[in-house]
Amino acid sequence: MDKNLGQAPVQELALVEKQAFEMPVYTTQNGSTIKQLKVGWEAYGTLNADKSNVILITHFFSGTSHAAGKYTADDAAPGYWDAIIGPNKAIDTNKYYVISVDTLVNANVFDKNVITTGPATINPDTGKAYGLSFPVVTIADFVEVQKALLDSLGIAKLHAVVGASMGSFQAIEWATRYPDKVERLIPVIGTAYIDAWAAVKLERWAYPIKTDPNWHNGDYYEHGQPKQGLVTALAYIIQDAVFPTGFNMRYPAPATDAAPHNNILASFSAWDQLMQHAAMRAEVQDANHILYLIRASQLYRAGMGDNWQQAIKNISAKTLFLPATGDQLLYPAMAKASVDAMNAGENHAGAKQADYAEIPGIWGHLDGVVGIAAVADKIEALLN
Amino acid sequence: MDKNLGQAPVQELALVEKQAFEMPVYTTQNGSTIKQLKVGWEAYGTLNADKSNVILITHFFSGTSHAAGKYTADDAAPGYWDAIIGPNKAIDTNKYYVISVDTLVNANVFDKNVITTGPATINPDTGKAYGLSFPVVTIADFVEVQKALLDSLGIAKLHAVVGASMGSFQAIEWATRYPDKVERLIPVIGTAYIDAWAAVKLERWAYPIKTDPNWHNGDYYEHGQPKQGLVTALAYIIQDAVFPTGFNMRYPAPATDAAPHNNILASFSAWDQLMQHAAMRAEVQDANHILYLIRASQLYRAGMGDNWQQAIKNISAKTLFLPATGDQLLYPAMAKASVDAMNAGENHAGAKQADYAEIPGIWGHLDGVVGIAAVADKIEALLN
Repeated sequence: MDKNLGQAPVQELALVEKQAFEMPVYTTQNGSTIKQLKVGWEAYGTLNADKSNVILITHFFSGTSHAAGKYTADDAAPGYWDAIIGPNKAIDTNKYYVISVDTLVNANVFDKNVITTGPATINPDTGKAYGLSFPVVTIADFVEVQKALLDSLGIAKLHAVVGASMGSFQAIEWATRYPDKVERLIPVIGTAYIDAWAAVKLERWAYPIKTDPNWHNGDYYEHGQPKQGLVTALAYIIQDAVFPTGFNMRYPAPATDAAPHNNILASFSAWDQLMQHAAMRAEVQDANHILYLIRASQLYRAGMGDNWQQAIKNISAKTLFLPATGDQLLYPAMAKASVDAMNAGENHAGAKQADYAEIPGIWGHLDGVVGIAAVADKIEALLN
Repeated sequence: MDKNLGQAPVQELALVEKQAFEMPVYTTQNGSTIKQLKVGWEAYGTLNADKSNVILITHFFSGTSHAAGKYTADDAAPGYWDAIIGPNKAIDTNKYYVISVDTLVNANVFDKNVITTGPATINPDTGKAYGLSFPVVTIADFVEVQKALLDSLGIAKLHAVVGASMGSFQAIEWATRYPDKVERLIPVIGTAYIDAWAAVKLERWAYPIKTDPNWHNGDYYEHGQPKQGLVTALAYIIQDAVFPTGFNMRYPAPATDAAPHNNILASFSAWDQLMQHAAMRAEVQDANHILYLIRASQLYRAGMGDNWQQAIKNISAKTLFLPATGDQLLYPAMAKASVDAMNAGENHAGAKQADYAEIPGIWGHLDGVVGIAAVADKIEALLN
């Protein structure tokens, strides 16, 4: 990271403030109605006079709109992409107004810095949590809510949309639905479609929740969460996002455990520690929200119709796919197939629009978050 | 596969017969006693006079000793490695006496052609199924039972041990424990150790069984199996053994399903079909046996002690590791690390013993079974 030598020094962002955006009523893609919809958002940098310097950051499955900076000076860590978002960083807040929005059905609904609407929200019509009466929402709904927020701010064009993983789905959907509004597109550890393999893999995250006797078909808000199912789901999510090399650095080898040789019910330290790690995350998460995020992810394909390969040709944004080499969840071949579909046959000016580069690292999918600095120069180059 | 041009033509094996081997008492590695232990075995080819032409085939997790040939002319399919085992094939039954043994706690305990001892077996002391009172058994136990059978046949040396996946563990353990008895070793889609990542991944197969209310802590033999848990576990095993390319050829894309857009509980056809496929397998399998196979696999490392890298140096067999390029379960890096440990530092004659080659294909781990013909020449070369 010598890129700033001889340039303005990298500085820290000013303290970040969470803001709320509310819609009196929102109609979902499947025709349902959500009243008093609320989502949180935050922004870094300054909106210019003609509102042409906006970069939208769309967040991943387990993430929130907290992409950079700190809420208070005492925060243990800044937002997840602080390595690339800030003054004189790759996504330079001295130039750009960077905005990020909590999705609908955000996983971290009980985090005090998250504002979202989903199954854990009180339905104003009943005074009780929605539970499974909350409608299925899709990546297109996430995008429409973001668009309503941007419209309310008078922002008509995006210099770029950049998002990791489930954030890549939102970014691609923005560029597919609103090709004239999105000038640049960077899907990180992303894909334009979920295939059968990935949909089943995601369903396996849902299984421990749905089979937890405390789930009560999603109607648990008066009993307490299906804790074991939720924690197990989060453990699976953690593992599936990490390449074995990184995972094995973090969790002890089976040879360290004696009990499993003698007791079929004894567990391995690696499992126990993973579950503890997951349990900490579960403190602020909601089991039904996880189910809805799984569903939104499973259903994703560019344009949300029958033919994502056709829909993706709609995109006119200059595009750079950045998969992680060791990704075993949204594996690089998916990004490659997405790029190929964008560049195939006759396209807008017949020109190649989409580029592809891999993020190196030992963390697999997670390298799209913790290893993002490795491609900071590529991101900066596409933006400028 | 032109290798037989100008050579003797490939022929079919004679019909295969399952035989039973019984031990009045067997003491496990953890010091428990199993009375009237029985396992099935089968053999192809003819044992020569000095019993020096024996090749042992050790089977994979979901497999049985049925490695080649047919039991009756009407069998729908031959044994799983029939492509490489038979007259004039890579493992040539005109030259070799090829023998294969059902493991303890074999998954397919209710298959009429499988003979095994495990939690579903009646404990002669109680007249009831063992359930979880069956001792934890390890890969070393599988090997010791095989050795007892070979001893009973007067076979003191193995020309080679060849096994896929969990079969590779047995093959490696043979060569580690009995270096003077094993002349050649071919671990296919294999590894000399299970790491934290793989142990946790395997634990995820156990979870649906252990959380099925019909599991009753393993004591279900009078109530009926924990069917849902078993089928789900088998579905995960099927998926984890298959690379996405192959999986997506077999199961429909999410875009073919309308219901999941409107109903959070609606499932995808890919999931439903995978579960149907798993349910067919479950017909002859036992949930507790799956748990015991998971445990045996989780505990595997060469020599079964604290330091597999040291233990594996014991091996004097000429060795060829054959991982599958797309394997996401026992990924090629594990085979590479195993080979490196064998070849590291001072070894027997200081010579490089272990070679490495990858099996190409679109099926991932499963290529070690369905794609084995691609490396038939390499196997043949090592054996001859």
